[in-house]
Amino acid sequence: MEQVEILFKNGRVVSQGRVANGFVAVDQGKIVAVGEGDAAPQAQKIIDLKGRVLIPGVVDPEVHFGSHRWVGDEFDSETKGAAAYGITTWGFMQPSPNMGQPYKAEKSKEEVVPYSEVFNLFKDLGESRSMVDFFLTPKILKDEHALEIPRLAEEFGITSFKYQLHLMSPERTAQFWPNRKSQGYFGYDDGTISLGMENVAKLGPTAIVCMHCENWEIARIFEERLIKAGRKEYRVWNQRSPNFCEAGHVHTYTYYARILKCPIYIQHTTTPETIEEITRARADGATVYAQTGTHYLSLTEDAWRINVPLRSAEDIEILWQALADGRIDSVGSDHTNTAKSRSEMEVPGDIWATKTGFPSRGEALLPVMLSDGVNGGRISLQRLVEVCCENPARIFGLFPKKGVIAPGSDADLVVVDLDRKVTVSSDMVHTAAGWTLWEGREMKGWPVMTMLRGKIIAEWADGDKRPEMVSKPLGRYQPRSLGRS
Amino acid sequence: MEQVEILFKNGRVVSQGRVANGFVAVDQGKIVAVGEGDAAPQAQKIIDLKGRVLIPGVVDPEVHFGSHRWVGDEFDSETKGAAAYGITTWGFMQPSPNMGQPYKAEKSKEEVVPYSEVFNLFKDLGESRSMVDFFLTPKILKDEHALEIPRLAEEFGITSFKYQLHLMSPERTAQFWPNRKSQGYFGYDDGTISLGMENVAKLGPTAIVCMHCENWEIARIFEERLIKAGRKEYRVWNQRSPNFCEAGHVHTYTYYARILKCPIYIQHTTTPETIEEITRARADGATVYAQTGTHYLSLTEDAWRINVPLRSAEDIEILWQALADGRIDSVGSDHTNTAKSRSEMEVPGDIWATKTGFPSRGEALLPVMLSDGVNGGRISLQRLVEVCCENPARIFGLFPKKGVIAPGSDADLVVVDLDRKVTVSSDMVHTAAGWTLWEGREMKGWPVMTMLRGKIIAEWADGDKRPEMVSKPLGRYQPRSLGRS
Amino acid sequence: MEQVEILFKNGRVVSQGRVANGFVAVDQGKIVAVGEGDAAPQAQKIIDLKGRVLIPGVVDPEVHFGSHRWVGDEFDSETKGAAAYGITTWGFMQPSPNMGQPYKAEKSKEEVVPYSEVFNLFKDLGESRSMVDFFLTPKILKDEHALEIPRLAEEFGITSFKYQLHLMSPERTAQFWPNRKSQGYFGYDDGTISLGMENVAKLGPTAIVCMHCENWEIARIFEERLIKAGRKEYRVWNQRSPNFCEAGHVHTYTYYARILKCPIYIQHTTTPETIEEITRARADGATVYAQTGTHYLSLTEDAWRINVPLRSAEDIEILWQALADGRIDSVGSDHTNTAKSRSEMEVPGDIWATKTGFPSRGEALLPVMLSDGVNGGRISLQRLVEVCCENPARIFGLFPKKGVIAPGSDADLVVVDLDRKVTVSSDMVHTAAGWTLWEGREMKGWPVMTMLRGKIIAEWADGDKRPEMVSKPLGRYQPRSLGRS
Amino acid sequence: MEQVEILFKNGRVVSQGRVANGFVAVDQGKIVAVGEGDAAPQAQKIIDLKGRVLIPGVVDPEVHFGSHRWVGDEFDSETKGAAAYGITTWGFMQPSPNMGQPYKAEKSKEEVVPYSEVFNLFKDLGESRSMVDFFLTPKILKDEHALEIPRLAEEFGITSFKYQLHLMSPERTAQFWPNRKSQGYFGYDDGTISLGMENVAKLGPTAIVCMHCENWEIARIFEERLIKAGRKEYRVWNQRSPNFCEAGHVHTYTYYARILKCPIYIQHTTTPETIEEITRARADGATVYAQTGTHYLSLTEDAWRINVPLRSAEDIEILWQALADGRIDSVGSDHTNTAKSRSEMEVPGDIWATKTGFPSRGEALLPVMLSDGVNGGRISLQRLVEVCCENPARIFGLFPKKGVIAPGSDADLVVVDLDRKVTVSSDMVHTAAGWTLWEGREMKGWPVMTMLRGKIIAEWADGDKRPEMVSKPLGRYQPRSLGRS
Repeated sequence: MEQVEILFKNGRVVSQGRVANGFVAVDQGKIVAVGEGDAAPQAQKIIDLKGRVLIPGVVDPEVHFGSHRWVGDEFDSETKGAAAYGITTWGFMQPSPNMGQPYKAEKSKEEVVPYSEVFNLFKDLGESRSMVDFFLTPKILKDEHALEIPRLAEEFGITSFKYQLHLMSPERTAQFWPNRKSQGYFGYDDGTISLGMENVAKLGPTAIVCMHCENWEIARIFEERLIKAGRKEYRVWNQRSPNFCEAGHVHTYTYYARILKCPIYIQHTTTPETIEEITRARADGATVYAQTGTHYLSLTEDAWRINVPLRSAEDIEILWQALADGRIDSVGSDHTNTAKSRSEMEVPGDIWATKTGFPSRGEALLPVMLSDGVNGGRISLQRLVEVCCENPARIFGLFPKKGVIAPGSDADLVVVDLDRKVTVSSDMVHTAAGWTLWEGREMKGWPVMTMLRGKIIAEWADGDKRPEMVSKPLGRYQPRSLGRS
Repeated sequence: MEQVEILFKNGRVVSQGRVANGFVAVDQGKIVAVGEGDAAPQAQKIIDLKGRVLIPGVVDPEVHFGSHRWVGDEFDSETKGAAAYGITTWGFMQPSPNMGQPYKAEKSKEEVVPYSEVFNLFKDLGESRSMVDFFLTPKILKDEHALEIPRLAEEFGITSFKYQLHLMSPERTAQFWPNRKSQGYFGYDDGTISLGMENVAKLGPTAIVCMHCENWEIARIFEERLIKAGRKEYRVWNQRSPNFCEAGHVHTYTYYARILKCPIYIQHTTTPETIEEITRARADGATVYAQTGTHYLSLTEDAWRINVPLRSAEDIEILWQALADGRIDSVGSDHTNTAKSRSEMEVPGDIWATKTGFPSRGEALLPVMLSDGVNGGRISLQRLVEVCCENPARIFGLFPKKGVIAPGSDADLVVVDLDRKVTVSSDMVHTAAGWTLWEGREMKGWPVMTMLRGKIIAEWADGDKRPEMVSKPLGRYQPRSLGRS
Repeated sequence: MEQVEILFKNGRVVSQGRVANGFVAVDQGKIVAVGEGDAAPQAQKIIDLKGRVLIPGVVDPEVHFGSHRWVGDEFDSETKGAAAYGITTWGFMQPSPNMGQPYKAEKSKEEVVPYSEVFNLFKDLGESRSMVDFFLTPKILKDEHALEIPRLAEEFGITSFKYQLHLMSPERTAQFWPNRKSQGYFGYDDGTISLGMENVAKLGPTAIVCMHCENWEIARIFEERLIKAGRKEYRVWNQRSPNFCEAGHVHTYTYYARILKCPIYIQHTTTPETIEEITRARADGATVYAQTGTHYLSLTEDAWRINVPLRSAEDIEILWQALADGRIDSVGSDHTNTAKSRSEMEVPGDIWATKTGFPSRGEALLPVMLSDGVNGGRISLQRLVEVCCENPARIFGLFPKKGVIAPGSDADLVVVDLDRKVTVSSDMVHTAAGWTLWEGREMKGWPVMTMLRGKIIAEWADGDKRPEMVSKPLGRYQPRSLGRS
Repeated sequence: MEQVEILFKNGRVVSQGRVANGFVAVDQGKIVAVGEGDAAPQAQKIIDLKGRVLIPGVVDPEVHFGSHRWVGDEFDSETKGAAAYGITTWGFMQPSPNMGQPYKAEKSKEEVVPYSEVFNLFKDLGESRSMVDFFLTPKILKDEHALEIPRLAEEFGITSFKYQLHLMSPERTAQFWPNRKSQGYFGYDDGTISLGMENVAKLGPTAIVCMHCENWEIARIFEERLIKAGRKEYRVWNQRSPNFCEAGHVHTYTYYARILKCPIYIQHTTTPETIEEITRARADGATVYAQTGTHYLSLTEDAWRINVPLRSAEDIEILWQALADGRIDSVGSDHTNTAKSRSEMEVPGDIWATKTGFPSRGEALLPVMLSDGVNGGRISLQRLVEVCCENPARIFGLFPKKGVIAPGSDADLVVVDLDRKVTVSSDMVHTAAGWTLWEGREMKGWPVMTMLRGKIIAEWADGDKRPEMVSKPLGRYQPRSLGRS
């Protein structure tokens, strides 16, 4: 037998519902053997895990960078944070004007181009600058985008598509969030949605429609009322868009998805009411997947302004339960970046004046899951790997290339030290924004090495304050093919 | 590196949702490595699969031998059929008087002993005579059995328990099936069931209650009516216990299972109505697993008499769909043996005079799934492995020791030749009954070698009419431990 | 125009969702005109209501006398209490051995005769002794009774039939309630139930199956446990047969009723869980009616032992809400009589030694509804008339002869003084038992005159402690015909 | 006793679930007595019904005149048709610019005034010109209208409010139906709906929100596709807005109605899918009422273009069943008038060129229900009265003043000859359009006399081709008060 390139040994290998003590052999970017005891092959390089944990690289289905800066710059800075903290595949979601064209804060209707026109620009930028692999989930902004779906699938391996339901009615929304329309959201309706659902249904598995469910047509009533009442404190943001605004959209669009036989992915499952609607839709025969976010699992309504809102501490525990028992399938970071400091974004005590969104969510994903989830006793290590790696890979058509430690799969691997305790500080992040909302929290359980297709890309050296990049950008676009895995 | 004992190579390895081309290394009864290409370890013995398929040994949760002969003799003859055709773990279900005591056709109430009294007798018989590994699912026949549950779990690793709901009311049943009562069924009620559910709920995962759902209190009305009408043809048996008699019990007992927080396993899912009740119960929050049988997937109501009945050709296709899409979780053989020839059992054209049950169901399990299922285009190879290996192992607390090809798991492996076509004949079976109801069917896709914990136990040599045993009985009782895998 | 016999005037006439100020004219036992102002006919006798309320006579679908005394004696004493307090039609429910035969406390199997054999005996007794009209709801105790249904409908106008589900398994029940079996309950099963449901479904509207839902097979487990724990206090009776034992039966038998297309009447709706099951069954397409009892609306679990149990104060308010909003359709008294004094029945502080059931429920029905319901602000007068008069009449096939104040209907009328306040004392009752569990309660709103088919049968004279009979027994058996009203 | 003004006698009086042979006495506009036999009062005028049927005047909750002509002219012509054929109360629904202001085909945004500004104009026009009583259900066209609800209820007795959901998105709709926007529909959203639901919920019973459910955002996709495919035949209109477009809106807005605790009235229940959604919403606790239209019960998709579409013959029978069994509560005419002849409206064979809507629906309501419904064996006379009179009166807060034949109620009465057969011709109508889509159908069962508050307003003299007006306009606006009847 020949030597393989790399052998991980003496570790706890977690994948597909099992924790096995053993080895993982890597060669030419692929996993070539997993095993235990003496059966390991010879290797040029041996990495002794010393009992630490080896998991598949995280597949994070939702990152939104490019709204506030040129995508090229974002690939540079933001994917470093992903690589540092264990994400090896990123699902990119953006309006078509933000795909690598010169950055403009305001877009005209004409600039909302077809995705097929800008896809190669985006791909080339990513393949020269991204630290991690990436795929694309276009945002459907108008009928033409929905009609483009078959071509996007065939030519570019794009099989997931997203609707931002809160931004359907920009005329109305613009009354209270003026710049939204200029970001490329010029309005669409249920017809645009049914067109997309029909086209995705025709593609068959694993094509899917993703939805940001949040009824802002109703939220505008609450917003007006709260402002009139002089309410400003952060938790008001949750009252502005209460649980039923999210669950109501889930109620409605799981119906159309069922009727049109289109699988649907609920991007932000943050309330018990949403979980109930998802469960009922599944019982009625709809194919529904549910994502939640690490921010929804660890930050309460007092923390910041974001869409959908951060919820109550009580709701958070219900989310963890649903994540543990299978009602929620996956976790996403919802990473964004404004490249602005906290003081530039925040007007303390005034939710209306504070900027929406907060950075460093990609960096927080795996640490929160390890610390609050596994070490917090809320989910098992096996379940962490399911919701962060295997399930997103399956749902988005990347399995078994991604999401699993098994022969033939990409050697995307993360070494985790479950016992490491670190108090989060803003100098630990790589994002251009330079700060994190989790600052000050002591977390236990950290990724300490990230490998992408057989190359170590990030490593947390002893004594360092954070993991650093140890390779140039190696990220590759991941086209997806249809058909059940 | 040391040599491993056995290396399977050049095969398509199917496990956990993937088909990988590669190798599997076996040492000291365990799988020690899986991989592809050159990473395979040295081995004392190399088995070249030549492109054939390697799957985990089948975990069949339901075999009932011992009702008509001494259990020792049954272990001798019947487990040969299992081993020959790819079953490596058998879940045994019997009343306590049939656990290895000298065989009696008629039992007294006193002979319905606690399982703790006869467990060791059963275990010892099996460990000296069984070709395959086995575990025990006691049938709860009275309150005392339900009260025995905590002790059975702790002392013997017994974590699954079964209720034969059709035999709850033996006084009534005995009016039309006189010998049933004498088999140990002296009657129990919903109180006995709630006691068992409470005790199983307290054990926590992966303890489970299994149920044969079929309302014979209602079936007796249909039976009387059909007999009066002079109906005798085989399909009358389906009309005697129509779909709602099965679904009705599922409706009722999933309710109590939900209220008492006890996981429930529906032993025979054979109708669309049953699937609907299961789906609704899951949506309501019950933990429900659904099994169907290979006989229900391949034999129509015209074929024979059995409980629950064989159903219509239309229902069969619905079962396959539910098996494919996940509403049904697993497949069981429901194997029994009367040691009687077909002519001793059958009165052609008279369902009432024909004996219930038919032999060789264990032998048919995997061939039917390969031929009708995979080669018939109804399920993928991956799904076959899920429903025949991984899911039963998970549900019954045997995972990841059984049901999966992964390092650390038992080396229970089956080599499958997907292209082999054979027309079934009764001289292919090992069962003491010596015949099979599938006789005359051409099936494509057959197991050709079976390994149990690293030892080849059965092999189908070229030119042989059937697979033959190539080892002595090696079967071991499989105690189960509690806690999520 | 001729003179009518009787004219009620200056009253608030409540019927069919309306309160009208006006008159009601009665002639030859029928209502011949209702109106207002000057349109009233001449009358031989004018009854000036002086602003009081006139309602239809109460149709109480559930009375059980005859279990402890000869039915003839019961007709004598118990129907006086009904007449006194506003009940004009009583639905009688008894096992066939209690239909007027010489009274025996213990019955043999042979004495459980067909209803057709004893119907005329029962009818004749009633028509010579009953103060109020009556109909019959036989208790189905065995297959033969279920088979008798078509004949009972055709020959005797019997269209409602009852199953005492708690007494299905007398072998088991007899372990903790020895005398039950001897009351005629020798056991039946779901087959007996399905036979009855089939036969009732064939009759079409308004035939109906009534069910006492309470799973005593499970209750026996709780009973044993509570006794072992030394618990004796009255509220233990509720814990012995907790809410899910009632709701579980409703869950099960609404399913079979739906499948067999048989309308079903839930005799005792006493828990939120029951209401939920009823609501869901209706949504699934079952025809389900729900009764509750005045005792369940006014007495808590601390008050006495009865089947199904009295529930918590919290559950009581939920029942009132469901009665108000339509989820519960009707109210019944569930009247029984042991002819024993309170001290003979009660062992204070020991629920197990205290006798089941308590007298005078018929007498309490209307006063509780007026006082706790209408004057307590929980239901409107119109709703009282719906649930006590019109709905029971409609459901049991007596409408529009009974249950409504309208031309052509029987002149069964009750004058109610909504302002009268009386503190209940045991010397107010007519039942042979001579006491009431409501003793000591001040109630506001009382019936003061009862008319049956144009004859005043009871009147509460000023200064009297209770209403007294003012006619001889005039009660007539009420046969029912099929077909939608 | 004094004489009453009018006495109907020798009739079959149908009301509140009963058919009684008897009399009805009328005095000073009210019913003062109902009865049978000799109890009738003296009367100045006796109307001998000779065995014919007397029913309450029809309460039709939905008429839309005023879209194409000045409301004053519409009151003149259209209410004659209503009076002629048995409608005595009409529920008027119009945008605020069409309430009696000088007629303009095109409206500006400024002309969409508050209803409080134009209510008196509308009321005065109606009270001088309408042959029948009327009430108002404003169409909520913008937030300001939703905010006006409390004032409308208090000052004008307006308690029902309607949303035209198909016209929510006029920008989109205007692409294929240009003139819609100019009719006053300038767009609103779910916020406007939630505002209205909140305000109606606060009013309490019997306030209600009415909804035209039909998702035109999706219909536009089908329209475009059908036009591209060159399809023109009439039945294409049903394919343009298929069943799920109606049921989808019901699914969505019954959810918000439940969450906001607002009763909801589904204006057009025309599909099995809609019925299912309504049934499920009720089971979940929503208060939902369902109307269908006589056109949906008697005209198939081949007949004409209308919103929502006429459906298939199969769907029609399902509607009748749901109307019979209670899942549908009421019937409305949805009457409109373009004052154009058939040839002006129709381009035979080209659904796109044909004008939407057809006249004379008010005139058809009762005849269709009598002929297809009662004489067709689909519903009973009692049920006809429930769905055409009592239920609409109850739901819209007019009961017991309207919808019932009982003392104290308005003497709105219709004499029906169930045996009269007439073949419909266009010269039988009173509508300004002068034609009817039911032309050529033989119908059996016709109204022959209509009385409004004690005055005969229309009568069908022997030999006449149609009923003629026999009084001047007497219609009065009907304010409604809140609180359960």
